[in-house]
Amino acid sequence: MSVELTPVENGTVTSAEGFSAGAVYAGIKTAGPDKRDIGLLASDRPCTVAGTFSQNSVLSPSVTLSREIVRGGGSVRGIVANSGVANCAVGEQGLIDAREATALAAEQLGVGVDEVLIASTGVIGVELPMALMREYIPRIELTGDGGNQFAASILTTDTHSKEIAVRVDAGGAAVTVGGCAKGSGMIHPNMATMLSFLSTDATVERGFLQETLSHAVTLSFNQIDIDGDQSTNDTVLLLANGAAGNTPFAGGDAGSEAFSAAVHHVTWWLAREMARDGEGAQRLIEVVVDGAHSDEDARLASRSVAASLLVRTAVYGKDPNWGRILMAVGKSQIPLDESKIQVFVNDIQIVEDGKAISYSVPSVVAALGEPEVRLRVSLNVGEGFGEAWGCDLTEEYVVFNSAYTT
Amino acid sequence: MSVELTPVENGTVTSAEGFSAGAVYAGIKTAGPDKRDIGLLASDRPCTVAGTFSQNSVLSPSVTLSREIVRGGGSVRGIVANSGVANCAVGEQGLIDAREATALAAEQLGVGVDEVLIASTGVIGVELPMALMREYIPRIELTGDGGNQFAASILTTDTHSKEIAVRVDAGGAAVTVGGCAKGSGMIHPNMATMLSFLSTDATVERGFLQETLSHAVTLSFNQIDIDGDQSTNDTVLLLANGAAGNTPFAGGDAGSEAFSAAVHHVTWWLAREMARDGEGAQRLIEVVVDGAHSDEDARLASRSVAASLLVRTAVYGKDPNWGRILMAVGKSQIPLDESKIQVFVNDIQIVEDGKAISYSVPSVVAALGEPEVRLRVSLNVGEGFGEAWGCDLTEEYVVFNSAYTT
Repeated sequence: MSVELTPVENGTVTSAEGFSAGAVYAGIKTAGPDKRDIGLLASDRPCTVAGTFSQNSVLSPSVTLSREIVRGGGSVRGIVANSGVANCAVGEQGLIDAREATALAAEQLGVGVDEVLIASTGVIGVELPMALMREYIPRIELTGDGGNQFAASILTTDTHSKEIAVRVDAGGAAVTVGGCAKGSGMIHPNMATMLSFLSTDATVERGFLQETLSHAVTLSFNQIDIDGDQSTNDTVLLLANGAAGNTPFAGGDAGSEAFSAAVHHVTWWLAREMARDGEGAQRLIEVVVDGAHSDEDARLASRSVAASLLVRTAVYGKDPNWGRILMAVGKSQIPLDESKIQVFVNDIQIVEDGKAISYSVPSVVAALGEPEVRLRVSLNVGEGFGEAWGCDLTEEYVVFNSAYTT
Repeated sequence: MSVELTPVENGTVTSAEGFSAGAVYAGIKTAGPDKRDIGLLASDRPCTVAGTFSQNSVLSPSVTLSREIVRGGGSVRGIVANSGVANCAVGEQGLIDAREATALAAEQLGVGVDEVLIASTGVIGVELPMALMREYIPRIELTGDGGNQFAASILTTDTHSKEIAVRVDAGGAAVTVGGCAKGSGMIHPNMATMLSFLSTDATVERGFLQETLSHAVTLSFNQIDIDGDQSTNDTVLLLANGAAGNTPFAGGDAGSEAFSAAVHHVTWWLAREMARDGEGAQRLIEVVVDGAHSDEDARLASRSVAASLLVRTAVYGKDPNWGRILMAVGKSQIPLDESKIQVFVNDIQIVEDGKAISYSVPSVVAALGEPEVRLRVSLNVGEGFGEAWGCDLTEEYVVFNSAYTT
């Protein structure tokens, strides 16, 4: 399938028709007044919604509440998000506060309280400062180009916002898919301290919307790894408001396929940007595993390489230590034939038949110094393909994370 | 069960009767001449043997060969070990070299070639320097107190040897269990770049010997985590030569239980020492999870905490960031009731009912600065108990591992 996606200039989560957003600095996170820490995203009409959430046994009530609404299947009109405080591990007060925050947002948006989702990120174990929420949510002004403000309001240790939108001709209808995301520590497969919000003006049947989002998340956000930790607050939401007026996408036709491709592209792009902006990172590591017995094997192995501290420190040190790459592929315990393995660094082959070949070390060291390092492992035992993303592990990561709350 | 174990002064792998060892510096690892890099361990009579090995899909032929011999069930007389080169990812030459190395050792020991096991550790992708093996193995002199030399010969980035032996009255017979081990990077559950060799003069039925070792490894070496990576070369071997003359231990009696307790203690002690000596580590982190639904849940959760980079950097920074501990427990995805969780740092309680209590921050910061930091999480939903060990993550780890081979 070949789908032509057109990038939207300065594309963001409000690029799709009918969406507006805004944000404010309430003082929840310790940052200058140019930062934002509460954001609102709204649709001018009811949206079908899909979501994926953290698998952690300890969950923020913000997640619990949003998951309940998504699973309930009703339409929604907006999202309230905050950064600075995760609203997690605060006992029963967490759910009370989450409900009040959505009620405040619903009032500001003029919609029903069950039509607003919530997401929080920040320090665990601190209650949401409701006095600030009560004071500042009513001050948020929403505009059609407020996506940038909203994207800024969800950042924690990210160095910059991640935003994108694409347009696609989906079965004759022009639809837009946009989104934003935040990282940048505690990132691991099965979601992480990550929030991502996607919006589209397509009309999409609910089951297909969830299927599309889940599949896209499997191939993107679940294939990035910053530090192997998984947050209590991970949330990905996709709102479809139908403003494009297309015949509903329900799968099995060209329009649905084009729509899925657009969603996948947006999540893929955001995932890569999150990995690139991992705490302390100097470069993006892209790992491709091909020729595995299955796509699942390949995804598992690629994630294992992207997550390996020894691979990540080797990339940081520009050390062509391919033994660590083989170790990391092998620790995924997928079936392979060691004697068929090939390894490439930015297309320079360094391993053939499972053994080193006489490559030019300075060239590989130079490749490992590029802003994007692509490690490809060809297993040559099947057709399975997978890719994963991570970042180099630097002293800065340690310095940063050894002094987070105190 | 209460078993009294008596520590053997300067106990090591040759403390049990009938064992001797020696080692030599052949120049395989880049270290001064006071270091050793090939070691031999021998028994003066045939031994029953048990072993556990790496689960990595990429295995050193040294592992393949030893595993084959252990599974074959025949008796063995000795072990040849080398450090500096892992004999891994070198194609078919790896198995040829492993066989020749055991043949050289067998000749030196005057035993059959199938009676010698092999283990290697070091850089992946480099062939064993057989010229050095041929020259130096015949020079190794074995003595009854050569355990220290043998323990030194297996070290790579460890800062010191790990050796221990204990005596126990096992059903009326005095038996000794000794051992040594090396770490110290690439350490993760399901074995890691770790080698450990245990010896005993007890007479032990083979099935029970394997059962005892496997259980001890589950509770010890598989519960330590340095960096989440798993080596291609992990090997734990336990040789029982019967010199103590006891009625064979086969399980189900007091003697067998006492013997098992001694093996467990030796592996537990070695595992802790390996975690303490993790690359760049300043302190040992001991994690205890109790009150889980099952021991397996508790082990899983404790390992998740010990492995968490965010917990490990927090300990390094003496940051009482208990939210990260809850996150790490939860990411193991075991069932729990957040509102029942208690957390203690070196016995100072900081969380009750899943929420922070007003603890003395300076006291907890001081506790986090101790050489041993004990994190205890009580889930209060059952009787399951588990413990795991790790170390703090420091800048030194990154510096060290970003400059390993180049």
